[in-house]
Amino acid sequence: MLPKSIKNLIDHFASLPGIGPKSAERLTFYLLRLKQNDLSSFANSIRGLKEKIKFCSICTNFAETDPCHVCIDEKRNKKIICVVAEPLNVYAFEKTSKYNGLYHVLHGYISPIDGIGPEDLTIDKLLKRISKEKPEEIILATNPTLEGEATSMYISKLISPLKIKITRIARGLPMGGDVEYADEVTLSKALEGRRDFISK
Amino acid sequence: MLPKSIKNLIDHFASLPGIGPKSAERLTFYLLRLKQNDLSSFANSIRGLKEKIKFCSICTNFAETDPCHVCIDEKRNKKIICVVAEPLNVYAFEKTSKYNGLYHVLHGYISPIDGIGPEDLTIDKLLKRISKEKPEEIILATNPTLEGEATSMYISKLISPLKIKITRIARGLPMGGDVEYADEVTLSKALEGRRDFISK
Repeated sequence: MLPKSIKNLIDHFASLPGIGPKSAERLTFYLLRLKQNDLSSFANSIRGLKEKIKFCSICTNFAETDPCHVCIDEKRNKKIICVVAEPLNVYAFEKTSKYNGLYHVLHGYISPIDGIGPEDLTIDKLLKRISKEKPEEIILATNPTLEGEATSMYISKLISPLKIKITRIARGLPMGGDVEYADEVTLSKALEGRRDFISK
Repeated sequence: MLPKSIKNLIDHFASLPGIGPKSAERLTFYLLRLKQNDLSSFANSIRGLKEKIKFCSICTNFAETDPCHVCIDEKRNKKIICVVAEPLNVYAFEKTSKYNGLYHVLHGYISPIDGIGPEDLTIDKLLKRISKEKPEEIILATNPTLEGEATSMYISKLISPLKIKITRIARGLPMGGDVEYADEVTLSKALEGRRDFISK
């Protein structure tokens, strides 16, 4: 009933994560009002997305160069490796401008339910990298979820014999959060992780 | 800092309505994991979106043929015209399967703040159509918002001298809604629009 090209694009949008059928419709009808030039430019940026993208052979992050600009940067602290699940997480840390070490991207979480085992991630590569680069600290920065915790646990067990400092990012109340609305687990973690109060 | 092709696509997504910078990032990194074939197919459906789409010269809806499949359908009741603001609204009514009349698409709302006046909509076309086709009823189906009400009001004033029945879709509690959480205006409209209770 809908023109085929419209139906087709709605289906494409609806297949993306976080976009339901109603949003897919709205996006498609929004695009119908754009000029053909803008549509073509959007289409080109999708088609060309992966053209110049490769994996960094050191940290396995998406990059335009190999090694990536972080791994090759002489100003970064090579003694710390922050282990994250996704390339997007690297971007999130970089935006804080508060981290000056290196990264290692796992490309997923251990999740038996989805058939993802440790061998599907870049954990092997991480271990080889550690024995070669001999960093002083490994920061485990996985999501505070069941899968994130399991993945961190698994990695920490493999690394601990190597006598390297292993840390993990703090769990607690997010900035602007509310004690009253925090769930019990978050509050417990916030209590456990309490630190000395330093007044200026 | 992000590869240019990734940054580029994030910007494209973020320019779409209802997609914030975080969602744009997530969508882009999701697409990075797709095969090139899937990316190309997505890109093609965007580039080709408008290729075969024209405006129906009767109801002004987007269509593959002119007149569109609704205007040309012999089984539809030509005596009723439902006036909507957007092509997407036609699709919404069609999905109910409860309406068998024709449509007229205004392509927007009267909104002085955005510099959109009656002459930017297809109101002229609607008036010519009414005097030519002589329908028995005009259903005003604009959004129950300030702009929607103003647009309907404007159109009804133009049509009323023609002695045609003018109706508007009911305002009231949505199905599954809650009296307790309904705002005052909705509740007032629901009261005003009350109808005889018919028990089976």
